Amino acid sequence: MTVENISPPTLEAKSDLPAIEFYFDFLSAFGYFASLRINQIAERHGRQVEWHCMLLGVSVMKVMGLKPLLETPLKGDYVRRDVPRYMRQHGLKVARQVSDPMMDPRAAARAFYWVKAFEPSLLENFSKVIFDSYWRLGNDLSDSEKIIELAGAVGVDPAALRSGLDSGTANELLRQSIGKSVDKGVFGSPFMIVDGEPFWGCDRLEMLDEWLLTGGW
Amino acid sequence: MTVENISPPTLEAKSDLPAIEFYFDFLSAFGYFASLRINQIAERHGRQVEWHCMLLGVSVMKVMGLKPLLETPLKGDYVRRDVPRYMRQHGLKVARQVSDPMMDPRAAARAFYWVKAFEPSLLENFSKVIFDSYWRLGNDLSDSEKIIELAGAVGVDPAALRSGLDSGTANELLRQSIGKSVDKGVFGSPFMIVDGEPFWGCDRLEMLDEWLLTGGW
Repeated sequence: MTVENISPPTLEAKSDLPAIEFYFDFLSAFGYFASLRINQIAERHGRQVEWHCMLLGVSVMKVMGLKPLLETPLKGDYVRRDVPRYMRQHGLKVARQVSDPMMDPRAAARAFYWVKAFEPSLLENFSKVIFDSYWRLGNDLSDSEKIIELAGAVGVDPAALRSGLDSGTANELLRQSIGKSVDKGVFGSPFMIVDGEPFWGCDRLEMLDEWLLTGGW
Repeated sequence: MTVENISPPTLEAKSDLPAIEFYFDFLSAFGYFASLRINQIAERHGRQVEWHCMLLGVSVMKVMGLKPLLETPLKGDYVRRDVPRYMRQHGLKVARQVSDPMMDPRAAARAFYWVKAFEPSLLENFSKVIFDSYWRLGNDLSDSEKIIELAGAVGVDPAALRSGLDSGTANELLRQSIGKSVDKGVFGSPFMIVDGEPFWGCDRLEMLDEWLLTGGW
């Protein structure tokens, strides 16, 4: 995916059905993988997708009191094996390895909430270009200037975003949103909520699909 | 399932293919659910099942340094919702609720390894009758005498098992086996290993099935 061929966002509501709430951390490989499939699932059921960025560093480490996944004995080893396995299964190739040093996700997360507040029609493409740059191309996006550049490529006014990041506005929007996601019980990436029903993990996308198809059980 | 209609174990190797290593904690609802499906998956691919009991209290709490799942903020709430949802999806009815007080799993786990060492042909039925009594019927099995009674019902000599539990033999067998499972990277319940490939979670049974069907990816 390049910036040029990201599809334009759908502004019109496709139906009166509630959207699928899609939570992810840009740092999360399975969040990225789910971002590549969530629109197709939503469209199949006449739903829209509401994109929500979260920070595992807040929900997992602070609220849940757990250590980072990759630093957890046994489970970290499993994840380092499971991520490339998923990619082989789905024919994905990315430059970033799950064991590579992670970016500081805060600039991306702050910019996400600024775009959501002030340029909501660009939010989906902004999210996709960040995921694509970080995971598929393997770029480090810790620096706000890199985020601003990518945002500019999908139509966000760079100067306005820079001002939002510098003034603390974006950070305050992020802080409030993270609090709301924790209040909703979101603790992993990806995490989907549809009609109040929570689904955690990329390997629950099939269950979500079946839930929407059948009306749940 | 009652003790009477548990099928006799298959003693003959069905093929030269390596068995599916199936790890579970009797305390684990998803371990129980997987135990109801693992044989069918194995049979479809000409494999046998090697039953391995483990203790999440050792691998998760001690080795991984995590708190118990149900006591983990946010995730515990999700699990309390996810377990009944799985049961509704699969038409299962059990007397035990996931939020009920848990048994002390050590008597069952020690007996498991004593049966494995001295009455291996009875191990599968022993495992199933424990799971059935604890989950479907909702019995507390913390007391060794209850384990011995259930073991007797599937053909284990009660006096010999009692002696193995009292002497510490069963405990030493358990201790060694738990160490081996941790060395193999097992950290959850259920956890399956086939041809060296690890699969964690009841919701990976479909992936395991497809892996065996296709030869992996």
